Amino acid sequence: MILDENRLFPANGEARSVAARLYQTVRDLPLISPHGHTDPRWFAFNEPFPNPTALLIQPDHYIFRMLYSQGVSLESLGIPQLDGAEKADPQEVWRIFAKNYYLFRGTPTRLWLDYALENQFGLKKRLSPENADEYYEIIAKKIQAPDFRPRALFDKFNIEVLSTTDTPLDTLEYHKAIRESGWKGRIIPAFRPDSVIDAEYAGFIGNIEKLGQITGEDIGTYNGYLNALRNRRAFFKSMGCTSTDHGHLTAMTADLDPETAASLYGRILSGRSVPQEQEIFQAQMLTEMAGMSVEDGLTMQLHPGSVRNHNRLLYDKFGRDKGADMPSPTEYTRNLRPLLNKYGNDPRLTFILFTLDETSYSRELAPLAGHYPALKLGPPWWFHDSPEGMKRFREQVTETAGFYNTVGFNDDTRAFLSIPARHDVARRIDCAFLGRLVAEHRLDEDEAFEVVLDLTVNLVRKAYKL
Amino acid sequence: MILDENRLFPANGEARSVAARLYQTVRDLPLISPHGHTDPRWFAFNEPFPNPTALLIQPDHYIFRMLYSQGVSLESLGIPQLDGAEKADPQEVWRIFAKNYYLFRGTPTRLWLDYALENQFGLKKRLSPENADEYYEIIAKKIQAPDFRPRALFDKFNIEVLSTTDTPLDTLEYHKAIRESGWKGRIIPAFRPDSVIDAEYAGFIGNIEKLGQITGEDIGTYNGYLNALRNRRAFFKSMGCTSTDHGHLTAMTADLDPETAASLYGRILSGRSVPQEQEIFQAQMLTEMAGMSVEDGLTMQLHPGSVRNHNRLLYDKFGRDKGADMPSPTEYTRNLRPLLNKYGNDPRLTFILFTLDETSYSRELAPLAGHYPALKLGPPWWFHDSPEGMKRFREQVTETAGFYNTVGFNDDTRAFLSIPARHDVARRIDCAFLGRLVAEHRLDEDEAFEVVLDLTVNLVRKAYKL
Amino acid sequence: MILDENRLFPANGEARSVAARLYQTVRDLPLISPHGHTDPRWFAFNEPFPNPTALLIQPDHYIFRMLYSQGVSLESLGIPQLDGAEKADPQEVWRIFAKNYYLFRGTPTRLWLDYALENQFGLKKRLSPENADEYYEIIAKKIQAPDFRPRALFDKFNIEVLSTTDTPLDTLEYHKAIRESGWKGRIIPAFRPDSVIDAEYAGFIGNIEKLGQITGEDIGTYNGYLNALRNRRAFFKSMGCTSTDHGHLTAMTADLDPETAASLYGRILSGRSVPQEQEIFQAQMLTEMAGMSVEDGLTMQLHPGSVRNHNRLLYDKFGRDKGADMPSPTEYTRNLRPLLNKYGNDPRLTFILFTLDETSYSRELAPLAGHYPALKLGPPWWFHDSPEGMKRFREQVTETAGFYNTVGFNDDTRAFLSIPARHDVARRIDCAFLGRLVAEHRLDEDEAFEVVLDLTVNLVRKAYKL
Repeated sequence: MILDENRLFPANGEARSVAARLYQTVRDLPLISPHGHTDPRWFAFNEPFPNPTALLIQPDHYIFRMLYSQGVSLESLGIPQLDGAEKADPQEVWRIFAKNYYLFRGTPTRLWLDYALENQFGLKKRLSPENADEYYEIIAKKIQAPDFRPRALFDKFNIEVLSTTDTPLDTLEYHKAIRESGWKGRIIPAFRPDSVIDAEYAGFIGNIEKLGQITGEDIGTYNGYLNALRNRRAFFKSMGCTSTDHGHLTAMTADLDPETAASLYGRILSGRSVPQEQEIFQAQMLTEMAGMSVEDGLTMQLHPGSVRNHNRLLYDKFGRDKGADMPSPTEYTRNLRPLLNKYGNDPRLTFILFTLDETSYSRELAPLAGHYPALKLGPPWWFHDSPEGMKRFREQVTETAGFYNTVGFNDDTRAFLSIPARHDVARRIDCAFLGRLVAEHRLDEDEAFEVVLDLTVNLVRKAYKL
Repeated sequence: MILDENRLFPANGEARSVAARLYQTVRDLPLISPHGHTDPRWFAFNEPFPNPTALLIQPDHYIFRMLYSQGVSLESLGIPQLDGAEKADPQEVWRIFAKNYYLFRGTPTRLWLDYALENQFGLKKRLSPENADEYYEIIAKKIQAPDFRPRALFDKFNIEVLSTTDTPLDTLEYHKAIRESGWKGRIIPAFRPDSVIDAEYAGFIGNIEKLGQITGEDIGTYNGYLNALRNRRAFFKSMGCTSTDHGHLTAMTADLDPETAASLYGRILSGRSVPQEQEIFQAQMLTEMAGMSVEDGLTMQLHPGSVRNHNRLLYDKFGRDKGADMPSPTEYTRNLRPLLNKYGNDPRLTFILFTLDETSYSRELAPLAGHYPALKLGPPWWFHDSPEGMKRFREQVTETAGFYNTVGFNDDTRAFLSIPARHDVARRIDCAFLGRLVAEHRLDEDEAFEVVLDLTVNLVRKAYKL
Repeated sequence: MILDENRLFPANGEARSVAARLYQTVRDLPLISPHGHTDPRWFAFNEPFPNPTALLIQPDHYIFRMLYSQGVSLESLGIPQLDGAEKADPQEVWRIFAKNYYLFRGTPTRLWLDYALENQFGLKKRLSPENADEYYEIIAKKIQAPDFRPRALFDKFNIEVLSTTDTPLDTLEYHKAIRESGWKGRIIPAFRPDSVIDAEYAGFIGNIEKLGQITGEDIGTYNGYLNALRNRRAFFKSMGCTSTDHGHLTAMTADLDPETAASLYGRILSGRSVPQEQEIFQAQMLTEMAGMSVEDGLTMQLHPGSVRNHNRLLYDKFGRDKGADMPSPTEYTRNLRPLLNKYGNDPRLTFILFTLDETSYSRELAPLAGHYPALKLGPPWWFHDSPEGMKRFREQVTETAGFYNTVGFNDDTRAFLSIPARHDVARRIDCAFLGRLVAEHRLDEDEAFEVVLDLTVNLVRKAYKL
């Protein structure tokens, strides 16, 4: 067996026992996934995944960034190139992966993969160069079976709801197809307007024009532009959407008077704006989005602090989202003040903050979320979606913000098979943290049972209105 | 029993045993409170506290900020409003608190409250909506008894000395009344001149004028202003004061030549200064205050990094100190250099640094305090006055600054009943940390007994000259 | 016995057992020291160390900075003064040290000293004022014996290779003498060009002129200057050097076009450059150095973030490296981008990053090193070369960068006798970390044995090409 039943719990003593008892009560609860990047086409078409490599390796930038860091080229891993150059043989990619599996020691990727290998495919020995081909063939065969099609996996994984992430320009046709298919799986969109708010986004002006065409609003004026966004939010909402998501470089917000905002929008739309104007426009738009959330009830998420496409060479050859986005220091206290002073006290707003800068947990995020009614803290994100990352989050956040200003777990993944594994890690680490609090007599055990249930299902349902 | 005798110690093994043995030697030592915000009138008048809510909830911004973050209005909690609007019924506030007691799970507030309920009032079950009224009545009755009056509690708590925090304009009449009352409790003032140094402080110019009137110095000149401050420091010292306290936005210090400083003072006094001038003036005044401390021996404390009154709505309705001050990143290495180059090597100065930015512990504060003879590190402050916060402080500071460049514990509270609980948490966490060092063979047990005694009483007496 | 055989391992349970088993396999492996500050003359002349104080105290700024912070003057410790004023009596210095040994409780210095006292000198009781004279005499006697001469200690310590740190102007005559002596100890230089790159370095212009004289290159032009550096790198390489080291204030890099770079060099050489120009020049030189490393294969090290000579008074009297360098916040993501976009994908480059700002571990360094093939992470540096510092490093780095983007341990010391102790601490803490991963079922035990071997010898040999 690869997986020990007590993995990720404290190594011994009362803390381990309590953690194990808590875990028994949440291990089989449904998975709620309010934020992620799976492809709705999987569920619309319900076709088999093509091969083990396409399922497990190529969509997962955690995997190929690590291999790349140790000198394995992305070409050899068959990562799609912008010029459409020929792909690698999937089984050969799998062999490279198996040969380098030792690189993932101590990483969450290793935990997720081991979980999938054992629980999804019944493979009970560690992946190695020796068993690579055998495992490839077993997996390749299994994923052709009906019970490994996307919808069957969704049901088997016991997913209560799964949110994708979509641009305002998206027709949501696959979501529509799913709803009309008769299948009961709840796949909902999330409204992510970066492509029509961030002037540096590829095709920005064209995107706004398209937004105008879709909605029939006059995007030549600021009000028309805002109405176009309102229009798309309403459409998303009609398709089951309960949240928006905003991926800004910083957490800067602004509260400009209407004339200034309209005039700034004119500059942005002219295509002649300078970076500082673009930054202020994005800042203003966060506040506008918060205002629309007060109106329409969509929960708002902010994911700041990622310097995108850091590696120019890679970006030119392979495009976005290839593991080359890098975190940078992120300030919240001053940056969020304009938005919070306008809407932070409004109970109709739920505004969830994420960070790649863990220094903000105890210094800014917990104090802010422990005060403003609208604010909640999202789970540890991206590089911090890991046992140590989750542990630091609870240790640094709980004493000031408590448990009830957090919102449960996000798997945030485009690697479908990792979803159960990721939720399992999160549940185990929460149990481990609570087990320690109980063992140190900082929390009664009966309370810990309530808290772990809240962290696993109740808080996420409430925060995302699911 | 709510309280386990081994709470906050490591959950098992040798580290727990050592911690428990260490704790036995310090649990009953007197409480020394060199920095806090209790009201001297309590001890001057020695009247009973009015009701449980006024005693335990309304003065404690840790409590009402958490309730507020979860949608409980400050009006419903009876927090005083600037316009004097009617207050809430205390027992109803208590019920709201009891109903929401679960929000404090995992927070230090919970530890403090449980301690007070059990040790001060003999209440041995967890507060809940069911026992809320019963507990309210028990507490209401007890606090009318003579042994629950402020002076009796002070004696019962075994407080050796308690410092309040006072402006230079304060007459210290209540301190005088206490001294003249015959009661032996040692209540001393601390000199906090923010209101006559920070040009953004409400009523700043008027404050300086009043400072001139009180002292008879010509505050129209920089030297007169400095002499007025010297004069008040001497008065405070005559009333038992041993320390000053400075609550600046940043740790910036300056060392201007006398003419430039005098000219800057003129600008500040004119009321036409710009923020940058005000910041430099504050920076200069920190260095001037250090110089005066070299002269008169008052220990100097700096508490930077809090963005005050972050929530405009709340500030306009309820005023200062309502749980809406937010930390921000704070730099020390470059900011303190002017002051340290002038006075940092002077053994007559004791300069105690605090931070809300834990990233500075290992990066800046420990290296600075591990070198400059004048510098010492204050205990974890405010949001970090908590088990995990104290643990991080020791783990991140000790290896570079040692134990002997720290100064013991500050309770820093306006919630009088939490004082014994807060000291108890600090003592337990120090014992837990030392227990781990001994169990990992990084410190001999006989040394740990010396260290814990130093951390509990000796270092604080020395640093604050008590 | 001062030293427990299980020191620094987890205090109990399976994690301790695994750690102890792992440690048995690495405790006696050779010490590899690819970065340090020992004096090559020791090994060239092989003379006895003069006395215990000169051996153990005076070269160790960790020791005298702590004593200084508690009011012990550097004069009384016999730290050499720039004006050559008379030195203190070594035995008296030793007594001061012994009397203040308690100050080092909880610090790595204490661990290193205890290790040296017991393992090098057979002293099995804790140093104290009572045994200070006895210990002094025992040590003084031992270090006169042939088996305590530098070369004998080097052999006894089982050092495989020891790198010093040297300026490009150095003739490396002592390295030459060692190589020609017939002794087999491998002492190699490292190329540290700060003195000819940092315009603020004392004697900068003269240093560049000397560089021109030594190499015969025309340092009046940028190309001549670059060629002079290439020339010295080649000379260092011929003397066994495998790495360069760069001690910049920030991690800023630049990629100027050749004309702009040449023109900037002209400004720098003119002596009339302003700080901002100097900073950009240093930034440009990091990229140039990376390019030369691609050419000649020298591993490149960057140590940014230390504000040197923070204490003016001390600097004026005692000079550099007296424990008064202070860390400051350090940004990597944006600063390194120009260099990484030019050379970060080149497998011929090995670029090792260090930091004094631990906040960059999980936020910037691990994400960068977990992606760019050229990047590796150096071990915890300076103030963080400590049990808790190493623990934080592994906890915050491993999940994103893995173990295989790190490079083993650097002792980085000028205190020769601390070398075995420092490596021992690093090995123990790595075993402790791995023991915990195994006990928490995050890593199989057979893998942990491979990893600890890699961390101890294989990764350092590979990264530094030893």
